[in-house]
Amino acid sequence: MSTSIRSIRVRDARFPLEAGHGSDAVHTNPIYAYAVCELLTDSPLVGTGLAFTLGHGNHLVCQAIEPLAKRLVGREIEEVMAELGAINRAIADDEFYRWLGPHKGVVHLALAAINNACWDLFAKSRGVPLWRALLDLSPEALVATLDLSYLEDVVAPSQAIELLRRESPTRGQREPILGSGYPGYDTSVGWFNYSDDVIETNVRRAVDAGFGAMKLKVGSKDPARDIRRAMLVRRLAGDDATIMTDANQQWTLPQAMSVCKELAAIKPYWVEEPTHPDDVQAHRVLAEAIAPIAVAMGEHVPNRVVFKNYLLARAASIIQVDAVRVGGVSEFLAVALMARQFGVDVVPHVGDMGQIHQHLVLFNHIALGHRASFLEYIPHLKSHFVTPARVEAGVYVTPQVPGSSSELK
Amino acid sequence: MSTSIRSIRVRDARFPLEAGHGSDAVHTNPIYAYAVCELLTDSPLVGTGLAFTLGHGNHLVCQAIEPLAKRLVGREIEEVMAELGAINRAIADDEFYRWLGPHKGVVHLALAAINNACWDLFAKSRGVPLWRALLDLSPEALVATLDLSYLEDVVAPSQAIELLRRESPTRGQREPILGSGYPGYDTSVGWFNYSDDVIETNVRRAVDAGFGAMKLKVGSKDPARDIRRAMLVRRLAGDDATIMTDANQQWTLPQAMSVCKELAAIKPYWVEEPTHPDDVQAHRVLAEAIAPIAVAMGEHVPNRVVFKNYLLARAASIIQVDAVRVGGVSEFLAVALMARQFGVDVVPHVGDMGQIHQHLVLFNHIALGHRASFLEYIPHLKSHFVTPARVEAGVYVTPQVPGSSSELK
Repeated sequence: MSTSIRSIRVRDARFPLEAGHGSDAVHTNPIYAYAVCELLTDSPLVGTGLAFTLGHGNHLVCQAIEPLAKRLVGREIEEVMAELGAINRAIADDEFYRWLGPHKGVVHLALAAINNACWDLFAKSRGVPLWRALLDLSPEALVATLDLSYLEDVVAPSQAIELLRRESPTRGQREPILGSGYPGYDTSVGWFNYSDDVIETNVRRAVDAGFGAMKLKVGSKDPARDIRRAMLVRRLAGDDATIMTDANQQWTLPQAMSVCKELAAIKPYWVEEPTHPDDVQAHRVLAEAIAPIAVAMGEHVPNRVVFKNYLLARAASIIQVDAVRVGGVSEFLAVALMARQFGVDVVPHVGDMGQIHQHLVLFNHIALGHRASFLEYIPHLKSHFVTPARVEAGVYVTPQVPGSSSELK
Repeated sequence: MSTSIRSIRVRDARFPLEAGHGSDAVHTNPIYAYAVCELLTDSPLVGTGLAFTLGHGNHLVCQAIEPLAKRLVGREIEEVMAELGAINRAIADDEFYRWLGPHKGVVHLALAAINNACWDLFAKSRGVPLWRALLDLSPEALVATLDLSYLEDVVAPSQAIELLRRESPTRGQREPILGSGYPGYDTSVGWFNYSDDVIETNVRRAVDAGFGAMKLKVGSKDPARDIRRAMLVRRLAGDDATIMTDANQQWTLPQAMSVCKELAAIKPYWVEEPTHPDDVQAHRVLAEAIAPIAVAMGEHVPNRVVFKNYLLARAASIIQVDAVRVGGVSEFLAVALMARQFGVDVVPHVGDMGQIHQHLVLFNHIALGHRASFLEYIPHLKSHFVTPARVEAGVYVTPQVPGSSSELK
């Protein structure tokens, strides 16, 4: 029952949001955008892979997909998966595109779309949801889908296989999550440009809907505004709520040190993207200074090598790797494996609105032994997905449709 | 005598090289490519700015230039220069392109072309070569051309001004370099795919031409080949020659540790790009292990923030920042300033074939007090530039034509 890739189709899918939605300290009127790679086959199955950007530049990612993906044409999906790690590396190191990165930016985002399309097609061809396809792979087969190059000092392929084997006997203890689901957290209570009134309505709605955790955008030029809004959310959500704050990289290190000390009053669980995402050292200094408040980041970390540097420096205690922002599900898994080696939590950023990550959290928990604390939830594109993620009473419901839930209408 | 920017013209300039030229451990048949931003004005002056990539992906950089540069149309160049730092930041943070980076990849390379075009036009409008235009700026005016954001912990604007003031009284001692020039080093003796015979011919020719320093490409899958060729170059060039080796990121950390120990036999001055350019920690470990051999890198470091992390970690002792690979001359200068604060040498990589950097080395030496040890020299595109850099008896001759020497025929 082979599924052979016949051709590549690329789609530039853009979704302007309603006023205020998605706004942060950088983006006033975000346009969510997916660079979509579709793998058409000799059967009715289509593999759909997403990469996430914001707005006008998305077409540049789209243009890079076809030339990099065409090496897959004519190949059988099971055969592709058996060497997906090597394929990822070959695409990432294409000698005529490599100088646009390497391993970051437009080309690496194109790789994300291509890699994710492979995983989607693989799960569909086996007739199972992505989480099941992942759980069914042997440690050796799983590791063959990963490019672990440049991670030799922390997680060589043999160590990755060993880790998967070590966690295997206790999988049964963690499988009940498939029935119970796991909590979502609500990112949409406190977008940057929402008025206090809107925030108030949203927090009440979130609590009523069963969310025990929610996020507020900070990073204002006026720190007093950040503090005031944080106090508001804490007051409305109550002492038991888990509250996260997100500065979207807008602080310098000295500013971050100062504002975070004030934010401590509301006992946030984490401060997200406090400063420049390339600045490992600044995050390390801040993480030490504001503990036990956690530093979370990852949506703008382009690849596993930068994540390795964050982990080695103990510069972030929540890794927000995103499969539509690094080189696809394969690189997401490489980072999740590495984080597990370091004993650091993974709470994905959801450029995909949680569609793919709802599967990956299940794999991380069951196969890698990660805690499944919660997963970000953003509802703004719900109506555009064929099988939107279901969050009921604040809990992600395990998806049962074959594939990675990535299809757009 | 104002010069006003009328429109933006973009050019995708590609130069396939002859067999073997430019080859390294990654690239077999490199196509050198410039994404060119031209600022057309109300006078005959045209500002030309380059960004450097290799091959097919270059058109993606070209496409990003016009939408990001159009904010310059209608503006007077002196007025632009007075706030070039703020303009760089605004372009780098354009909310609809920022998710393609931030501050790396296609968008940041487009910024390089735009920023470099401003510097070229500025020098031309003043009728002087770029090095003179730079030296004529007051410390305050120079710092206004830089985006120093996210460097607050190591070089705030006030500290940058202070550094320039501190070096000012001793400029006269360093100005003789304008008459004497400074040495080039020959990168073209040992491209990766050259046979031993070609290397032998090249080394003899380089020595005869007056070069006291030269570079060999290593990073072979067969370390014995690297060692054999390194021995060959040392034997031919003699004990007094300065020899550098360049692995183009091809080693894992364990491989780098092992090969560098063997390479020590030929006493190389530096090992360049030993491993992944995002891996600060691996460079730090290697730098400590192989001292006094220097670790050099920078052609694939996208921005000042990553360079800051290299400097803070003491992970590289030669900073090879390249103005056509980071966000232009402005970001090059920010990195050069920061390196000076750390007492670390800058020896630029020359994606521009030394055209712009021949100016910048003079500024670094005279205004910042950097050593001017030498500058890379690659002759393969000589015939394509209007005023190609002149290296005579192994020495860069100070350019006298107005502008940044960036014009292509």
